Amino acid sequence: MYCVSVRDHMMIAHSFKGEVFGPAQALHGATYVVDVEFRRRDLDADGIVVDIGRACDVLRRLLGELSYRNLDEVPEFAGRNTTTEFLARVIFDRMVAAIRRGDLGPGAGAVESLRVTLNESHVAWGSYEGRVGGPS
Amino acid sequence: MYCVSVRDHMMIAHSFKGEVFGPAQALHGATYVVDVEFRRRDLDADGIVVDIGRACDVLRRLLGELSYRNLDEVPEFAGRNTTTEFLARVIFDRMVAAIRRGDLGPGAGAVESLRVTLNESHVAWGSYEGRVGGPS
Amino acid sequence: MYCVSVRDHMMIAHSFKGEVFGPAQALHGATYVVDVEFRRRDLDADGIVVDIGRACDVLRRLLGELSYRNLDEVPEFAGRNTTTEFLARVIFDRMVAAIRRGDLGPGAGAVESLRVTLNESHVAWGSYEGRVGGPS
Amino acid sequence: MYCVSVRDHMMIAHSFKGEVFGPAQALHGATYVVDVEFRRRDLDADGIVVDIGRACDVLRRLLGELSYRNLDEVPEFAGRNTTTEFLARVIFDRMVAAIRRGDLGPGAGAVESLRVTLNESHVAWGSYEGRVGGPS
Amino acid sequence: MYCVSVRDHMMIAHSFKGEVFGPAQALHGATYVVDVEFRRRDLDADGIVVDIGRACDVLRRLLGELSYRNLDEVPEFAGRNTTTEFLARVIFDRMVAAIRRGDLGPGAGAVESLRVTLNESHVAWGSYEGRVGGPS
Amino acid sequence: MYCVSVRDHMMIAHSFKGEVFGPAQALHGATYVVDVEFRRRDLDADGIVVDIGRACDVLRRLLGELSYRNLDEVPEFAGRNTTTEFLARVIFDRMVAAIRRGDLGPGAGAVESLRVTLNESHVAWGSYEGRVGGPS
Repeated sequence: MYCVSVRDHMMIAHSFKGEVFGPAQALHGATYVVDVEFRRRDLDADGIVVDIGRACDVLRRLLGELSYRNLDEVPEFAGRNTTTEFLARVIFDRMVAAIRRGDLGPGAGAVESLRVTLNESHVAWGSYEGRVGGPS
Repeated sequence: MYCVSVRDHMMIAHSFKGEVFGPAQALHGATYVVDVEFRRRDLDADGIVVDIGRACDVLRRLLGELSYRNLDEVPEFAGRNTTTEFLARVIFDRMVAAIRRGDLGPGAGAVESLRVTLNESHVAWGSYEGRVGGPS
Repeated sequence: MYCVSVRDHMMIAHSFKGEVFGPAQALHGATYVVDVEFRRRDLDADGIVVDIGRACDVLRRLLGELSYRNLDEVPEFAGRNTTTEFLARVIFDRMVAAIRRGDLGPGAGAVESLRVTLNESHVAWGSYEGRVGGPS
Repeated sequence: MYCVSVRDHMMIAHSFKGEVFGPAQALHGATYVVDVEFRRRDLDADGIVVDIGRACDVLRRLLGELSYRNLDEVPEFAGRNTTTEFLARVIFDRMVAAIRRGDLGPGAGAVESLRVTLNESHVAWGSYEGRVGGPS
Repeated sequence: MYCVSVRDHMMIAHSFKGEVFGPAQALHGATYVVDVEFRRRDLDADGIVVDIGRACDVLRRLLGELSYRNLDEVPEFAGRNTTTEFLARVIFDRMVAAIRRGDLGPGAGAVESLRVTLNESHVAWGSYEGRVGGPS
Repeated sequence: MYCVSVRDHMMIAHSFKGEVFGPAQALHGATYVVDVEFRRRDLDADGIVVDIGRACDVLRRLLGELSYRNLDEVPEFAGRNTTTEFLARVIFDRMVAAIRRGDLGPGAGAVESLRVTLNESHVAWGSYEGRVGGPS
């Protein structure tokens, strides 16, 4: 299996509901350094997993939809805790949609699975991994 | 698959038996920066893999059992080389036991597998991964 | 010159006023991974710059005063942009005060200068350095 | 599953053919910080996955075959783009051959799979993983 | 003293002249992960050292002038070894010129000194630091 | 000022005397990832601060004198706590001696100052910096 990963970041505010979160129930924020790993069995004719330039551009665009926002006010997330692992899934889903739309080029259609990791500090990170074409 | 990882460290002394270890047969030591990755298929009702605060507390307690010790004098390890990969398994087993005892909260019972990584320097690290509920 | 550094982190929400900040004028947030470097000319009788355990405890306490908060609502910061470099100075001042109060032990009185660095992402960080006993 | 990883690096020049590469079609270069992960189900009698000293020596030798070279002039790579992911496979294949020759010692024959990762910058990396004994 | 640092990277080919360089006398290449630290005594009215967005943009542009090139063919560097420390100075000089031209905004005129660091691998890096307004 | 840094590591056992050390009074150990920064005002005729290959070789040799040892049994350190900052000074002194002996080549005689940093974990590090030719 071949893999290529790219990294970018976003900075957001949010709060959590539930006693388990302790002080994080208050409005606070996070820098998420986001890694997306693209996986496929064989390289394409150019010798790549995915056009890394396009992958970076698409990741930047996806993170730009969330960065510099208070996620508590994003209608799509109403009633949900925007935890690190939850956001990893959000970005996973949006990257899968981008691949299907062809935003990463026609060759990226052969990408089989993704892993999205959100590094929230030097001591904690979360991720979601799954198949591009169906259930994980 | 969703994952959450937390990091802490321990500092120990030990020696190894066996010509393969060369100079490491003498009493020396290591800082192990320890990462534990918790994995499960779905998030719980709070939107998390595991209570990250509890995970950090339990990891700190587990590492506290080993840190600032000469592992050559720990009866449980008698006759064994406490290599990086061996210690990764020790911490894996203890974290599995902690999950089963409920130390990470009732929701952590849904954690399916763990990966424990011990970073011993900037150029070497070892890990053990396996299922929480049975053989790896 | 001898130096010792310790690291911890905080997670906050804030917004900035001023066109220069572009999208960061909206409410967002950050994880700051905070390094404090303590400097002195000579080691104390124990062979240390500062009691590293106490340094970690005091840093954790100082960051706990700010973490999981919306800094826009902290009266002390009213009318100020809580930028990375501004917050580095805030933590510098509070650490200096802690040293003077003796929170880091009597030996820490010999610490001559500090450097406080706030890492806000994998591509940006800011710091403030100055003397403990007077102007930088 | 037990794993051990070691890290070293190489510095090479190369160019790529294909519009997808944009400015990277010109002769340029890269530092690749290379991680090799060795995986096996059980530890050997010494309590290790692989002799880490030998693993480092073999990795250094393998990277020495490529480092400080213009890969455009290496006959073996004629007509191929020596992308990060392609080179990960090259090093994977050479490490598998080294294991089979016994360069990592007789115990290393039990290594089941490898993952080779080439870190090309702070924001991009690629890898190849597969079984030692057959197709990935 | 307040500081702000930003990071980006470039990928270049080059060779060195002189026996001291050993195998690096052959054409090879490097990824340089480049950090630029801006320093000034006081913050500006917005509470910043420099407009971090502009600093990133200018750094990207400066690195773009060198990236994806064979530095052996750059007339400006003829007869010079483009070592890590030499290139740190080149980028320092160009960033100073950019500040003086006003590319980082009028407030950046108060920046007193810079440190430019080029990380060439996980085990080696070089830098140049000096004053913006005169000799270092 | 030009700087070049190189990195290597050592693994040692030791214990500390003094209540301030708490549990670290027991025999334990550490991995120290060691960075040595060489500084000089001007580059030599080859365009370098120091022969990086020689610098790496000398650092490896110096660390080899201490690695895989119990520092409590090193006569030179009798009655001293081998703390991170103390060991930074030990390596500083030995590197200065190596420079004066010519181990880093004749050009290294122009190196003005050094900074030696010992990273003991992901959350703590210590250093010593001083002039090569006299008091810091």
